[in-house]
Amino acid sequence: MGLFKATGVFYKSVQNFDLGPSSNEVYLKANVKAPRMAGFLVKIFAWFLESRIFGTLLLYILKRNNLIHKLVSNATVEEPPMFVPLHPFVDLNEQEVKHIDSEATPAERVQHAVDCLPLQVMNSPDRFQSSYFRRWTIMDYSRAYNSGELTPRAVAERFIVAVGESSNLPLPMCFFIDYDSGDILRQATESTLRYQRGQPISALDGVPIAIKDEIDCSPYPTTGGTKWLHKVRPCTGDACCVMRLRACGAIIVGKTNMHELGAGTSGINPHYGSARNPYDPNKIAGGSSSGSAAVVSAGLCPAALGVDGGGSVRMPASLCGVVGLKPTFGRIPHSGVLPLNWTVGMVGVLAGTLEDALIVYAAISGQLPSHQPTTIPPKIYFPLLNTSNPISEIKLARYGEWFNDCSDEIRLCCSNALHLLCEHYKWKTVEVTIPEIETMRLAHYLTIGSECNASLSSYLEKLDFSESGWDVRVALSVYGAFDSKEYLKAQKIRNRQMQIHNNIFSKADVIVAPTTGVTAYTIFDDVKETGELDYINGAALVRYQIAGNFLGLPAVTVPVGYDTAGMPIGLQFIGKPWSEPTLMHIAFAMQALCNSAYRKPQIFYDLLNKN
Amino acid sequence: MGLFKATGVFYKSVQNFDLGPSSNEVYLKANVKAPRMAGFLVKIFAWFLESRIFGTLLLYILKRNNLIHKLVSNATVEEPPMFVPLHPFVDLNEQEVKHIDSEATPAERVQHAVDCLPLQVMNSPDRFQSSYFRRWTIMDYSRAYNSGELTPRAVAERFIVAVGESSNLPLPMCFFIDYDSGDILRQATESTLRYQRGQPISALDGVPIAIKDEIDCSPYPTTGGTKWLHKVRPCTGDACCVMRLRACGAIIVGKTNMHELGAGTSGINPHYGSARNPYDPNKIAGGSSSGSAAVVSAGLCPAALGVDGGGSVRMPASLCGVVGLKPTFGRIPHSGVLPLNWTVGMVGVLAGTLEDALIVYAAISGQLPSHQPTTIPPKIYFPLLNTSNPISEIKLARYGEWFNDCSDEIRLCCSNALHLLCEHYKWKTVEVTIPEIETMRLAHYLTIGSECNASLSSYLEKLDFSESGWDVRVALSVYGAFDSKEYLKAQKIRNRQMQIHNNIFSKADVIVAPTTGVTAYTIFDDVKETGELDYINGAALVRYQIAGNFLGLPAVTVPVGYDTAGMPIGLQFIGKPWSEPTLMHIAFAMQALCNSAYRKPQIFYDLLNKN
Repeated sequence: MGLFKATGVFYKSVQNFDLGPSSNEVYLKANVKAPRMAGFLVKIFAWFLESRIFGTLLLYILKRNNLIHKLVSNATVEEPPMFVPLHPFVDLNEQEVKHIDSEATPAERVQHAVDCLPLQVMNSPDRFQSSYFRRWTIMDYSRAYNSGELTPRAVAERFIVAVGESSNLPLPMCFFIDYDSGDILRQATESTLRYQRGQPISALDGVPIAIKDEIDCSPYPTTGGTKWLHKVRPCTGDACCVMRLRACGAIIVGKTNMHELGAGTSGINPHYGSARNPYDPNKIAGGSSSGSAAVVSAGLCPAALGVDGGGSVRMPASLCGVVGLKPTFGRIPHSGVLPLNWTVGMVGVLAGTLEDALIVYAAISGQLPSHQPTTIPPKIYFPLLNTSNPISEIKLARYGEWFNDCSDEIRLCCSNALHLLCEHYKWKTVEVTIPEIETMRLAHYLTIGSECNASLSSYLEKLDFSESGWDVRVALSVYGAFDSKEYLKAQKIRNRQMQIHNNIFSKADVIVAPTTGVTAYTIFDDVKETGELDYINGAALVRYQIAGNFLGLPAVTVPVGYDTAGMPIGLQFIGKPWSEPTLMHIAFAMQALCNSAYRKPQIFYDLLNKN
Repeated sequence: MGLFKATGVFYKSVQNFDLGPSSNEVYLKANVKAPRMAGFLVKIFAWFLESRIFGTLLLYILKRNNLIHKLVSNATVEEPPMFVPLHPFVDLNEQEVKHIDSEATPAERVQHAVDCLPLQVMNSPDRFQSSYFRRWTIMDYSRAYNSGELTPRAVAERFIVAVGESSNLPLPMCFFIDYDSGDILRQATESTLRYQRGQPISALDGVPIAIKDEIDCSPYPTTGGTKWLHKVRPCTGDACCVMRLRACGAIIVGKTNMHELGAGTSGINPHYGSARNPYDPNKIAGGSSSGSAAVVSAGLCPAALGVDGGGSVRMPASLCGVVGLKPTFGRIPHSGVLPLNWTVGMVGVLAGTLEDALIVYAAISGQLPSHQPTTIPPKIYFPLLNTSNPISEIKLARYGEWFNDCSDEIRLCCSNALHLLCEHYKWKTVEVTIPEIETMRLAHYLTIGSECNASLSSYLEKLDFSESGWDVRVALSVYGAFDSKEYLKAQKIRNRQMQIHNNIFSKADVIVAPTTGVTAYTIFDDVKETGELDYINGAALVRYQIAGNFLGLPAVTVPVGYDTAGMPIGLQFIGKPWSEPTLMHIAFAMQALCNSAYRKPQIFYDLLNKN
């Protein structure tokens, strides 16, 4: 029975931790012991996992080798479980914020956000004539429409042509799972009429926004990247966040590609093709919100919605060189989003600039009035990005060993960006130690896997597995391998990590780290039919994501540079609960120092220039 | 593979339920298919369950036969999980309540409670000279001490003699797992000095209170009814509720017997003997807070603390003919209580009268100031039991098929009591249907079992099983049999049932039902070494308990009569979240109509009369 014995660690009291830089807490690297698999190997692996006898044994060995038994299942954790990372609202008294009426409509909130934008964004005539690359922003669209220079209808037509082109490239970009030209043109025509009447609804009126195919949005089915989910769970209307975007006049331009069921980080999808990276179509866009990141990167939309359950907004944003914002858990209503999990996932925003992320965030945030009173922040603030007093005395917590656990190029690029930021604004880096990060990653994996298994179980029973991708079949097998004790232990670890993070936040305003441990990597030919299992790259991609999901913390990634292959690199800021305004101030400051170095992707569509 | 297929039910939307009396929702009786087992049979059953191959198969069959697979594991439930039944505070604007300063000390709160008592309780000179049986109340003790008629020291001495006697009866009562005469006398002496100085702390000063051995209390180890738990988890101080009782001057008289690990409803304990029912020592006291119910019933203490995770306060209270109060989830701090579960268990009060339950509730309720702000009710109310205007227009929801699913004698007795209550106070019974009660029972069992397994797992690994009772070994085997999907499905069912109950509470103030489906039954000789597995009686005992625990609702049981064997029968009221004042008003009214019929137990100690 030796095989079945795995002693668990005993976690000491959180109070006894030294969270300073010379702490003797050991940084544990991800213990991933699986080789990359694709093609026939994935099929064999899936078959083994799905067989009752071999599968049970294999899963046991997998969990053991990945230290799940030692660090989670059999660990002694004294903290009670924290099931949901919903934090009581605390007024943080942040600097340079605008207080928003909680009764404001989405369109009014968008106007408040616009009022917070800096003047150069409001009024930048040079645009592409400027010396450096920048994408069109929401305000660029708004200005072009208001001036009559361009109509939403014309943009929509160009959009449809561009998407068609992108699908017919030698390497098809596979941005969308579905888009309906008729529906897009209808919305654009209505918007055009509003401008002609001089009555646009908001700055978002006529602006193309794409929606991850995990979010309900008429008239499209919600596939979740699968071939079957929409058949058993019909989409019956818009998700709340989509409704709010429509209430601002935005043109919903279709459902973006994603990793099947969000169960992977590459965005490689055997059913709809792999969304490709506009900076190099040979490479992944990252996942699971792959299409949303890629369309923004390629200039097709200034912003798109994604869902972030384990970095699924921030990773592809970083890999595609755009901004990714994952708000505090509970900030955005989840109704109408596929319930693949309940305690880690959140709608997030992908946008070309931090300013555009703010505008879309303004449109969609705020709980429904019917929601439990304890979970609505009673006060809403937006960051005044147009302040003449940049916010002062910011402290950024940096955990050196973790920060540096990435490729050399990412380490160098992110270190330089952070140095530049602190130099320029006279902010301070606080060196800290964040213990048990690997434990948190495993506990999060166990949690999201268990929840996905529970949410899909009624469907999976009836599922013809031949409709599922092979890599997802492997994922679903692993997701089903956890018992209730393991789930509860993971929730105890969640509580423990929250206390650790609260202690870190008593020393600093935000935690800073690279967004990913690797940049976008190559899509090999063998992935087409089976997808790919690449747990080493996967672990490097999610390395810095977990606190945002497992603890419900807000986080934002900003592009800060490129590796030698020209692939984008992102820097991430992770904030206290409900601290989006400060987080956006910091991200905006970072962007301002980097944007002159931004590069144009290989695949790029310029919808506002009439060339 | 036929064995492993069990189709799950599809639960329709809660909105579509007809909750009225002529609903066509079917009442499903508990589908318990196991014969009573004791002695060698239990051992064989435990061995089978603990064997890896047979055990897995046997557990599968057990879960299937009890419909867990059909009603929970494989069911389709659209509601998201509700993990913790912590309800936002709502000011219910209840009738005839006293508003209490939330900063009040435990002793001040006790005084507020005393101010709420009716005059006849305050001033009843006849006591045992009265025509009917009544136990001494806290106010009787307080009066005797204040008048100098008696000292706490004298009561403590009588208490020690009485407990000694009770242990040496032909059928030893096994009330306590541990009590320390020296510690009791030391507390009594201190209290006596306070009265001599004319400075008693509160009405509880010098009053003997017993504590279930699941609650930390110096100088005793916390065994949880086991032979081993205190060795691996030393008790390092008083639980918060015990600290508060001490702060009121109460004499903590020892640790009461309980069902091992709270994992059963009979109170039969192979290690410390079975706490016996004072109304008939051949019969069970009920569990798991068996000793706490029995000591109050036998007159050794006016009140005792228990813990109620699945009816463990209300069931033994009912079986022993005393009052049992389980407050709203989150009302009483849980710190210092064995963390056998996190989402269903609550400290509760067992007392001879509703008034005494109120006084002890007043002493121990109220969250710690450090607790998350959302979970402290910002307003505290106590029921004004001394009102001259009995509260009016109360509506009591009664689900006929459920109400009647008990022994004939219980049905008749409870129906009569309810009829009397409504007649006397001109209150109304509202006939309702509460769907899926059996599903809720299974989901609760799955939840408490999973949580107990997770909380004990680190200990169980190292445990020498020969130290565990055989019936508990069976329970622990079953507790370990649930996977994370099943746990999550159970939480979805919790949300669903909460919505159903909210709808019921829109029609009525409380739900009324018998407390148990059977009265106390015989302790057979074959249980001594192995304990007993009696799932049929067990299911009948817990039948009416589950909403109190799984949904965190407050509930109270009041004795309303006896069966032909002379065993007590309780009637239960289940309230809205945070509605303890109304609940206590109703229970007090019920008690007032029944108390002239209360009978003296066979085993009874009269600590205040000097005979």
